[in-house]
Amino acid sequence: MNIIKKAINYLKALSAETITNAGSGHLGVSLGASSILFALFKDHLNFDVSDTDYLNRDRLVLSAGHASALYYSLLTMFGYDLTLQDLKEFRRLGSKTPGHPELNVTEGVEVSTGPLGQGVANAVGMAIAEAVMEERFNTVGFDIINNYTYCFVGDGCLMEGVAQEAISLAGSLQLNKLILLYDSNEVTIDGSLTITNRENVAKKFSAMGWDVIKVNRGNNYYYCTHAIARAKKNKKPTIIIFNTTIGIGTEKEGTSAVHSGIMSEKELAAFKESLSVKESFFIPSDVRELCMATTRRGKLNHEKWNQSLAMYSSTHPELYKSLMAFFDRKKINLDRILKNISKYDGKSMREVNKHALSELAYQCPQVIGGTADVGPSSLAVIDNAGNFSYGYRRGKNIHFGVREHAMTAITNGIALYEDFIAFDSTFLAFATYALPALKMRCMMKVPVMSFYTHDSIAVGQDGPSHQPIEQLGQLRAIIGNTVYRPCDYKELVAGYSNCIKNYLPTTFALSRQEIGHIDGTSFEGALMGGYLLENKSPKPDVVIVASGSEVELAVKVAKEFKKKIVVNVVSMPSLEVFEKQTTAYKNKVIYKDAKLVLCLEASNDYKWLKVLGGKAALYGVFDYVGSGTPQEVVEKAGFTVKDVVKFIDSKLKAQK
Amino acid sequence: MNIIKKAINYLKALSAETITNAGSGHLGVSLGASSILFALFKDHLNFDVSDTDYLNRDRLVLSAGHASALYYSLLTMFGYDLTLQDLKEFRRLGSKTPGHPELNVTEGVEVSTGPLGQGVANAVGMAIAEAVMEERFNTVGFDIINNYTYCFVGDGCLMEGVAQEAISLAGSLQLNKLILLYDSNEVTIDGSLTITNRENVAKKFSAMGWDVIKVNRGNNYYYCTHAIARAKKNKKPTIIIFNTTIGIGTEKEGTSAVHSGIMSEKELAAFKESLSVKESFFIPSDVRELCMATTRRGKLNHEKWNQSLAMYSSTHPELYKSLMAFFDRKKINLDRILKNISKYDGKSMREVNKHALSELAYQCPQVIGGTADVGPSSLAVIDNAGNFSYGYRRGKNIHFGVREHAMTAITNGIALYEDFIAFDSTFLAFATYALPALKMRCMMKVPVMSFYTHDSIAVGQDGPSHQPIEQLGQLRAIIGNTVYRPCDYKELVAGYSNCIKNYLPTTFALSRQEIGHIDGTSFEGALMGGYLLENKSPKPDVVIVASGSEVELAVKVAKEFKKKIVVNVVSMPSLEVFEKQTTAYKNKVIYKDAKLVLCLEASNDYKWLKVLGGKAALYGVFDYVGSGTPQEVVEKAGFTVKDVVKFIDSKLKAQK
Repeated sequence: MNIIKKAINYLKALSAETITNAGSGHLGVSLGASSILFALFKDHLNFDVSDTDYLNRDRLVLSAGHASALYYSLLTMFGYDLTLQDLKEFRRLGSKTPGHPELNVTEGVEVSTGPLGQGVANAVGMAIAEAVMEERFNTVGFDIINNYTYCFVGDGCLMEGVAQEAISLAGSLQLNKLILLYDSNEVTIDGSLTITNRENVAKKFSAMGWDVIKVNRGNNYYYCTHAIARAKKNKKPTIIIFNTTIGIGTEKEGTSAVHSGIMSEKELAAFKESLSVKESFFIPSDVRELCMATTRRGKLNHEKWNQSLAMYSSTHPELYKSLMAFFDRKKINLDRILKNISKYDGKSMREVNKHALSELAYQCPQVIGGTADVGPSSLAVIDNAGNFSYGYRRGKNIHFGVREHAMTAITNGIALYEDFIAFDSTFLAFATYALPALKMRCMMKVPVMSFYTHDSIAVGQDGPSHQPIEQLGQLRAIIGNTVYRPCDYKELVAGYSNCIKNYLPTTFALSRQEIGHIDGTSFEGALMGGYLLENKSPKPDVVIVASGSEVELAVKVAKEFKKKIVVNVVSMPSLEVFEKQTTAYKNKVIYKDAKLVLCLEASNDYKWLKVLGGKAALYGVFDYVGSGTPQEVVEKAGFTVKDVVKFIDSKLKAQK
Repeated sequence: MNIIKKAINYLKALSAETITNAGSGHLGVSLGASSILFALFKDHLNFDVSDTDYLNRDRLVLSAGHASALYYSLLTMFGYDLTLQDLKEFRRLGSKTPGHPELNVTEGVEVSTGPLGQGVANAVGMAIAEAVMEERFNTVGFDIINNYTYCFVGDGCLMEGVAQEAISLAGSLQLNKLILLYDSNEVTIDGSLTITNRENVAKKFSAMGWDVIKVNRGNNYYYCTHAIARAKKNKKPTIIIFNTTIGIGTEKEGTSAVHSGIMSEKELAAFKESLSVKESFFIPSDVRELCMATTRRGKLNHEKWNQSLAMYSSTHPELYKSLMAFFDRKKINLDRILKNISKYDGKSMREVNKHALSELAYQCPQVIGGTADVGPSSLAVIDNAGNFSYGYRRGKNIHFGVREHAMTAITNGIALYEDFIAFDSTFLAFATYALPALKMRCMMKVPVMSFYTHDSIAVGQDGPSHQPIEQLGQLRAIIGNTVYRPCDYKELVAGYSNCIKNYLPTTFALSRQEIGHIDGTSFEGALMGGYLLENKSPKPDVVIVASGSEVELAVKVAKEFKKKIVVNVVSMPSLEVFEKQTTAYKNKVIYKDAKLVLCLEASNDYKWLKVLGGKAALYGVFDYVGSGTPQEVVEKAGFTVKDVVKFIDSKLKAQK
C-alpha cells in the first residue's frame, strides 16, 4: 500500500474510533471527506503549528462543523496542539475536542461552527479582509498578503439562506482567494438529497460569478489535490464539487443512516480490518513522518514570509510601518471623537452615529463595514471612504445588499481574520434576520458593532412589520451580547468603548428621530451602563429608568412632578453593563426604597425587571401599533408625558 | 391615446398622489411596476370582488410590500372594497391602507408583507397547498382546483436568503402553478444593483429548475400581458424577468433617489401633466368601465366554477363530499388523541409528539408539514403518510431541506391558502433562523404549529452552538405567539388545542430526552397555561413553578423538602396562556405570600419574573455550558435535585 493511502486509512480509523469512543458524532462526513481534507492539509493549507495565528496563514473554515472528528484527527496528525488522548476525550466536558469546533478551545480552529451555513459567510468575510490587506500592502515583488480562505461545506450548508446570500455577494465581489470545498455526497439526515434539492449546483454557482471545478472521484486523494491546485490559480471565487460517498467503507455507506451513525466496537473492528489498521488511536511513524514533512514546509513558508517582510521593511519602510500599525487600537482617541461630534447633539442617533463612525475611521484604518442596503437611511456610512467593490478594494463601506443574515456572519469573518473593527447595520426590526449570526458572534466574543436604527415604534408609517418591539429583548437574551441604546453622543461613544476597548460584541439601538439635548448626560456614566441624570436625590419617591429616546420623555415626566414629589431619572443605555457594577453603585443609582421604580422603554423586554428588582414596573409596548405618522403611533402607544404621568399617579395611589 | 395607456396613466397618477398626500411611501416601484401589475389584474388574476375568499381564486402575494400604493390603487380601480377616500388615508392610523399590505385590514390582501423575501416563501407555500388540493380533488373533466399563485418581487426580495431557500425548494418540487413576477429595475436603496449583485438571474433560476421568461420592455403593458399568458402554460415554476425603469416618468427615473422618494406638489403636477391627467384622485368613467369588465369576468368565472362544482357533486359525490369536509375542524377529537397516546407517557416529548401528530393526521386530512432535514431526529413526522414530492403530491410530510427560515414562511403560506393545519419542525437552537417568519405568522395570527425539539441544554454533546438557552425568551417575546413547553402528553395536546381550536400560532419546545411519568398532570390544567400539580396546599412556604423537563426535577426537589416545609409544585407549560387567566385563578395557583416562588427552567427568560410577580426567583441557565454528555452538561448547569435544594435553602435562610 502506498503511504498516502495508508495515511488516509489511519485517518479514517482515527475519526471512526474517536466517534465510537465518544458514543456520539458524525461518522458519514468524517469518512466521506477524508481524502478532500487530507489533500488540503498535506499539499495546500499554509499553516505553522508553532505560530498558528500568523497573519498570512491560510484560513480554513469548517462550515460543516459536524465533521469535527475528522478535523481534530487531521490537526493531531499534522502536529497541532492536539494529542491522541484529546481525541479520546472527544465531546467530553472541558476537553479540547468539543462536539463542534470552537474558537479559543482548540488551537488551529479559526471560527466556531456547527449551525449550518454560517461558516460560508464567515469565509466570505475572511476573503474580504484578505482582499483589503492585499490591496493595501502588496506591491511589485512583494505579495505580503496572499493567503487563501478555504471553506469546507456539505449539502446542508449550501441549502441555508445565509450561505446563498454570502455566495451571491462573493461572486459579485469576485473574491478570487476564496475556495469552497463542497463535499457533495447527496445525502442528508432525511435521506437522499434529491428529495429536497435537485439543483444544478455547478450552473447555479456559475450564474453567480463563480468558477466551478468538478471532481467525480472525490474519495481519491490525487484527484482532490489536483483540483485544489487548479482552484488556487483562478481569478474568481471557486467551488470544487467533490462527488463523494458518505460513510465510505462502512456497511451503510452512501445512505443517511451513516450521517450521524456510530459504529459498534464490532463494526469498528471490521472497518479497521478493511483499512489494514490494527492498532487503536494510533499514527504509524511513516505516516507521522509524511505529515511532519508538511508541517515543516508550513514552518518554512512562515520563515520565508518573515524574511520577505524584513526585506519589505527596508525597501518599503512606509508601507511596512503602516502595516505594523494597522491594527493598533492604542491610538484610538475617544475623547477626540466626543469633542468633534458634540456639535451634533440633539440630532437623531443614526445621524450622530454617522459622524462618530467617520471620526473613528479617520483615526484608524482598520474600520470597515456597511449596511444591508439601507445606507441612506441607517446612515452607518463612513464619510469619504469609498465603497468596497470588485474594482475598488480600498473602499471601507461594504454594500452588503439586502442580505442581513450574511452581512452579520461576514462581519464576524472580517473581525476573525485579524483585528479589524468591523461593523454592520440595518433597521432594528430586521435584526431578527441576523440573530443566528449574532449568537455565534457572541459565543465567540468577536468584537463587532451592529448599528440597528429606526429603533422604536416612532418609525411610524411603515407599520407593524417594521416596528421593533420584541427585538431589544431578543438581542439582550443573547448570552455575551451587550446592547447599547444611547440617548446622545456621549452614551453612543461609551458603546463604542465597550466594543473597541473592552473587545466585546456590541449591538446598538439607534433612533431614527431626533432626540433633543438632555442635561446631565455623561460618557463616564454610560460606561457604567446606567447613571443618575436628574435630581440625584438620595431618597426619591420615584425613580424613572429609561433608555434611548425615552430618556427625553423621562426627563419631561420628571419635570411634571416637580414640587409635588421627588423623581430621579436614570439613563440606562446598557442593562448588561449596569448589571456588572457593584451593588453599592447600583443601589446608589436605583434607590431601593423608592415607592416606584419605573422603566420606560418602547419595548416588551422583561429583563428590566431582573435588573431593576422586584418592585420595578415596566412601561413598555406590548402590542403592535398600526401604521400612522410617528406622532400618531407614539401617542397611541401612550408614550406621552400625560400618559406616563397618569400611570405613575395611579401606581402611587394604589400603594396608599 | 388608447384606453389601456390612459388607464395606466391614471393608475400611475393615483399611486403618486397617494404617496405625496401621505408624505411617505415608495414611488419608484409604484410607477415602475404599474404595467406589470395592471396587466396581471386586467387579463389574468382570477378574483371575485363579491367573494374575495373563494377557494379557487388566484393568489397574489405582494412580496415587495412597499409597492403598496400601487397595489391599493389597483384594488380600488378593479372594484375591491377600497375607495379613493381610502387612498387619501394611506399610511394613517386606522385606515384600510396601511404602510405595507396587511391581512385582515384590506380586502383582497392575501398576506401581510413588508420584510423582504418572506412573500416568496409564502407564495411557495400557497403553491404547495394548491398542488395538494389539485391532486386530491381534480379528476377527468373537472379541474376543480387550478388556481395560480403570483408573487410580485423586486431586486431586494431575491437577495434575501429566505427567498433563495424557497425558490430552490419550489424548483425541486416543480410547482408549476407558481409564477414570480420580477420587477427587475436594477436599483436598490443603496444605488445600482450591480454594486451588490451581479448575478445572471435567468441562469440561476434555470439551474434551480425554473422556467425563465425575459421581458425587455417591462414598462409596456402588451409585452407584460403576453409574458404572463405564456408563463401560465409552463410545466415548471416560472419567473418572468421584467426589465423596468424605477420611477418611470419622473425626473429621477432610473435612480435610487426615486426608490422611497416623494414628489412635491409641484413635481406631482408636472408629472400628472405628462400623463395627461388633470384631475386629482380620479378614475375616468371609461377607465373604470375597462376595469369593471375584468371585475365582471372574475365574477363570471367564479359562477362558472360554482356550476362546475355543482356538476362535480353529482358526478363525483364522494370526492365532492370529501372536499366539503376537508377543512372541517369540528370532527377533531382531542380526547381520542389523549387516549390513544397515553401509552407513550414517560417517553421523550419528541416521540410523544410523533404519535400525537400521527393521530391528528389520522383524524383529519388537512394536516401537512415537515421538518428542516431533521425528521429522524425531531420526529415531527406523520406515520404512513408519505412524502410530498414532485412525483407524489399526496404525501403529507414535506422535506423542507436545511432551510429553516423558508420552511417557516412556507407553512405560513400553506395555512394562508386555506384552512390547512400546517406544522414545521427543527431543533429549538435553530428556531432563531425562523424568527422573522414567526413574527409575520404571529402578526397575522396564522395558526401554524412549530415543533422545536432538543429543547434544553440536555442536548449535551453537540455543544454550545446547539444549546437552546435564549430561544425560549426570544420566542415568548414575539407578540401574539404562544409557547407551550409540555412535560407530558396531556400538556402537549393542550398546546394542540391552543392552535387548532383557538386558531392561535403555537410554538412547542419539546424534550429530546425522556421525561419520567409525573403524577397529577392535567389536560384541563394545561389549557389554563399553568396549574397546581403537587401538594396543592393553600399556604405553602415555597412554590416551584416549572416547565417541560424541569417539572420532573421540581417534583423531585419538592419531595426532598417533605416534612420540613410545604412546597407546592406548579406545572406551567405556557406563560402566555396563564397570563390570560383571572387574578383569582392565578393567585390560587401561585400563592402570593409564599416565602419563595422559584421558577425552574433551563433558559434565561426573564418573562417569568413578570408572570410570577416581583418576589419570584429565576433558577435558569445564564451561560453556555461546554459540550459533554447530557448528564455532564446538566450537572454542570446545576440542574440537579441537590443544587436546587441548596439554592432554595439559601434563599429561605437569607430571608430569616
